[in-house]
Amino acid sequence: MEKNIPYKTYLEENEMPKQWYNVRADMKNKPAPLLNPGTHKPMTAEELSAVFCDELVAQELDNDNAYIDIPQEILDFYKMYRPSPLVRAYCLEKMLDTPAKIYYKFEGNNTSGSHKLNSAIAQAYYAKKQGLKGVTTETGAGQWGTALSMACAYLGLDCKVFMVKVSYEQKPFRREVMRTYGASVTPSPSETTEVGKKILREHPGTTGSLGCAISEAVEVATHTDGYRYVLGSVLNQVLLHQSIIGLESKAAFDKLGVKPDIIIGCAGGGSNLGGLISPFMGQKLRGEADYRFIAVEPASCPSLTRGKYAYDFCDTGMVCPLAKMYTLGSGFIPSANHAGGLRYHGMSSILSQLYDDKLMEAVSVEQTKVFEAAQQFARIEGILPAPESSHAIRVAIDEAMKCKETGEEKTILFGLTGTGYFDMVAYQKFNDGEMSDYIPTDEDLAKGFAGLPKID
Amino acid sequence: MEKNIPYKTYLEENEMPKQWYNVRADMKNKPAPLLNPGTHKPMTAEELSAVFCDELVAQELDNDNAYIDIPQEILDFYKMYRPSPLVRAYCLEKMLDTPAKIYYKFEGNNTSGSHKLNSAIAQAYYAKKQGLKGVTTETGAGQWGTALSMACAYLGLDCKVFMVKVSYEQKPFRREVMRTYGASVTPSPSETTEVGKKILREHPGTTGSLGCAISEAVEVATHTDGYRYVLGSVLNQVLLHQSIIGLESKAAFDKLGVKPDIIIGCAGGGSNLGGLISPFMGQKLRGEADYRFIAVEPASCPSLTRGKYAYDFCDTGMVCPLAKMYTLGSGFIPSANHAGGLRYHGMSSILSQLYDDKLMEAVSVEQTKVFEAAQQFARIEGILPAPESSHAIRVAIDEAMKCKETGEEKTILFGLTGTGYFDMVAYQKFNDGEMSDYIPTDEDLAKGFAGLPKID
Repeated sequence: MEKNIPYKTYLEENEMPKQWYNVRADMKNKPAPLLNPGTHKPMTAEELSAVFCDELVAQELDNDNAYIDIPQEILDFYKMYRPSPLVRAYCLEKMLDTPAKIYYKFEGNNTSGSHKLNSAIAQAYYAKKQGLKGVTTETGAGQWGTALSMACAYLGLDCKVFMVKVSYEQKPFRREVMRTYGASVTPSPSETTEVGKKILREHPGTTGSLGCAISEAVEVATHTDGYRYVLGSVLNQVLLHQSIIGLESKAAFDKLGVKPDIIIGCAGGGSNLGGLISPFMGQKLRGEADYRFIAVEPASCPSLTRGKYAYDFCDTGMVCPLAKMYTLGSGFIPSANHAGGLRYHGMSSILSQLYDDKLMEAVSVEQTKVFEAAQQFARIEGILPAPESSHAIRVAIDEAMKCKETGEEKTILFGLTGTGYFDMVAYQKFNDGEMSDYIPTDEDLAKGFAGLPKID
Repeated sequence: MEKNIPYKTYLEENEMPKQWYNVRADMKNKPAPLLNPGTHKPMTAEELSAVFCDELVAQELDNDNAYIDIPQEILDFYKMYRPSPLVRAYCLEKMLDTPAKIYYKFEGNNTSGSHKLNSAIAQAYYAKKQGLKGVTTETGAGQWGTALSMACAYLGLDCKVFMVKVSYEQKPFRREVMRTYGASVTPSPSETTEVGKKILREHPGTTGSLGCAISEAVEVATHTDGYRYVLGSVLNQVLLHQSIIGLESKAAFDKLGVKPDIIIGCAGGGSNLGGLISPFMGQKLRGEADYRFIAVEPASCPSLTRGKYAYDFCDTGMVCPLAKMYTLGSGFIPSANHAGGLRYHGMSSILSQLYDDKLMEAVSVEQTKVFEAAQQFARIEGILPAPESSHAIRVAIDEAMKCKETGEEKTILFGLTGTGYFDMVAYQKFNDGEMSDYIPTDEDLAKGFAGLPKID
């Protein structure tokens, strides 16, 4: 154990960040705006306010203000489960026999099981403040739906969750957690919406996708008085709220007098990675410090490493605004064989721009290698990680092993976004030796790209 | 929010306890010794060492030393998931509109999902130190088995878990967590032991019980070279290790300048309650301070409130030593309808003696009321509690509501032993309105008492 570096560093309550950091303010090349899917013109605040709460629309469009005050009510909620610990992985380092110093920011110590709660409470708060009755959303693995249910229960808001049908059936326990928090949970696609009925007519027997569930949730929000739609990733506002992860990490590192060299996060839509890296990226953008940032995505859904940087639909029903992002095409569906989450076809516009500007690296990893890392980590660090988070563990271990070869004492930070308690079906597959890998061929990807909209 | 009292209080690493506290040293009436089931004479260290590790035998028999050093290796392991937070339940207080000040010590932020890890690592450590190959144990709900698997994986010990068959089948995810940690998990009763075969012959189709699983685990430990048996509750040594909960709580309260008036814990075998109250009970025994202690047990398995204080078998196969405890008889099996854990027929000898000496109170609660409290707590405090822990929540809320009536500003501490992520079948029953209560009749209890051994 290194002198003065404890296993876990918690900020004091009065050291917790009181503002979110908006990385867009420091980006020279701003992320591309959302476009109206009909006119292909940038979405106005008025157009967006049919879908999102007013205050969240303002945050979505704000490319200028670097810091945004966190309302007191949200700060109070954060105090119930934050600060999250910055953990020094002494046991992992010892097992790997590496000179690297490994830290992780652990976001799993709350009932939603992940970092998703950081944005859920913010979005629910602004909905409540606007006097709304409730919100609608979609959920895949269930972490976001759980987080939103928790936030809505706390604030007394109604919460309608469309859950991808295959998850609804395979993860009844996730569903029950949401119900315990008072949410209504509908398997998607469903007969309760027009877009759901259409999808079911065209694809009878489909087990659904995130893209379908988004379309249904948006339809209900825009057709029901007093409701708006909320989303757990991809959007600028979500990365803003998730900056709390990076801000706390940075404050803890500053307290310890340590500066990380490499910062690693798993990336599906980008909510965790974007939040974790943002204040560090801000320093890099302002020329104050340098870091290596590594986005880790599954080989079976490689939007950054093999996708195209283009405007695309965010949902299957094509009712949402168009976003410019690294994408595999909204028609791309990762192999059902893939157990590890991170299945979204596109990537946050902010992260896409940063990646395109070569300010960030990306790697893809295969799921059997991910679960090997997960098991290793669980046994030596005592936390059973979510499959999503384990993508970051994999690459953190790989980087630490490179340090072992070169003898470099690099400091590595990775985001441990959550726990895997509801992912034991995937672990069982791995324990039984029945997990395999899937890498889409170029032909598979070409089919997804063929569906990209044509934008001048 | 009260001045200077944060939502969560964490001890610094250097403030963490370095010794366990042994409440027996301060008890005037010592807990009754374990008896040899054949001779009815107190078990000697030599006899016990066939079942338990030598160092643990010494701890089991030690009624004299008030403080026992925690080995450095265990302190290091504790640092991975401890200190646990002492939480001020501001939101719950506000919702109840009570003048009471409610605190809880939350032990659920580790992968075993409960406090069980505190003793698992200690028992595994002493087994490793003795040069053993592995340990055997039983598990019901699965928290103990998970905790022991984690500790064994960390230390490189083999771990054989006998899991009550009904849980093995209904909780496949618990089983997979243990397998992920490298443990072998056998449904009990099984054909792998003599006592298991005997039980299966006599009760074909039985879905097992903790008592059966203990018998099988003890048989394997005593018939396999290099193995010993370990147990997650009831024993003196377990309460010793669990004193870390109370010691940390007391240190945190001292730091805040607060003294609790009422301390509440759920009680099955007594591991959590015994650990939580021990340093406070020590003060009471030494006449230094006074507290009310309340043990909460399920109405369907009421060992303290309706049991007899007598020597009894600890296991169904009657291969274990006899313990003097409040018991319902080793043949008593709580209704299958009871979902809330805490199903053991007896109670820790230490707690039984303290209760008999009127140093502690006990109440029993019905499970529908327990799940009402669990849901209320989850929605307002953001933690989905284990059914076991929710027994303590129920009574903490009841006591806070009494304060509301009387206007008293009492300070209440309760133990929140763990999370309910693997208990969603029970929550589903509650959510669907299909949960009911069961209180055994006097006739039901008489059948259990009829099986008590006759000891002079």
